[in-house]
Amino acid sequence: MTTDHSEAVLAANMRFYRALANADGPAMDAVWSHKDDVACLHPNWPLLQGWRNVQASWHGIFEQQGPFRVWPSDVTISASGDMAWITCTENVDASDAGQTVGVVIQVQATNIFRRKESDWRMVHHHASQQPQRPLNGPGTLRPSISQN
Amino acid sequence: MTTDHSEAVLAANMRFYRALANADGPAMDAVWSHKDDVACLHPNWPLLQGWRNVQASWHGIFEQQGPFRVWPSDVTISASGDMAWITCTENVDASDAGQTVGVVIQVQATNIFRRKESDWRMVHHHASQQPQRPLNGPGTLRPSISQN
Repeated sequence: MTTDHSEAVLAANMRFYRALANADGPAMDAVWSHKDDVACLHPNWPLLQGWRNVQASWHGIFEQQGPFRVWPSDVTISASGDMAWITCTENVDASDAGQTVGVVIQVQATNIFRRKESDWRMVHHHASQQPQRPLNGPGTLRPSISQN
Repeated sequence: MTTDHSEAVLAANMRFYRALANADGPAMDAVWSHKDDVACLHPNWPLLQGWRNVQASWHGIFEQQGPFRVWPSDVTISASGDMAWITCTENVDASDAGQTVGVVIQVQATNIFRRKESDWRMVHHHASQQPQRPLNGPGTLRPSISQN
């Protein structure tokens, strides 16, 4: 991938987190593709498909929640042709959620972007809360039935 | 996307779930790209990056866990050029995990595939356990600090 594309995709990713932190609906609208094939998985939500559903979720969240401190770290980027995907950790200041001050919650995200001319738009967002300590030793995929 | 590509990507996705259900390490090896830019997020695991780490995790899981009943549903596919991404629900028979018989746990997955000639290989897998009932009404992104 050319340096130009990396920079453009990383900039689009940063616009996503800025819109999220600022609870800025129009800015979030400008980050996403408005096609029917977009999909979004907020932590502990069911999968949302199609731009109208994805947009409604963001606007609803922003109305209810307002701005909060969230910033990405450990950003990796891969790309091929007009597609790019990013993995990153979303760091959320838990005190903004009325919880323990000084605690940062980490959410792991997969963000997929598609290029149209010079414009990279998000087409897929999958975020899930991760354990606060790395697991030790080998694990299994056995699901927890008591989660949430 | 051409029908040929859709079929090839869906077939690759099915091979992934067959390898998972059968705890078949060599079959799982054949599903994935062996490049350094692959990444895998098992439910409640930290992000694994690079084929060696991803491969080690699957082989460790298969050794420890053995075969179990898991099948995909609600499969959607999108593609652009040599990239394709799938969303699906992974249904896990909880009785295989020593838990309540008759309960199916649902995990939501994002699977990204990259084409090399006629061969579609997985480059990214993100799986996260979802709530067992759809959420009602508008929610927030506020993380749960007590989860796991």
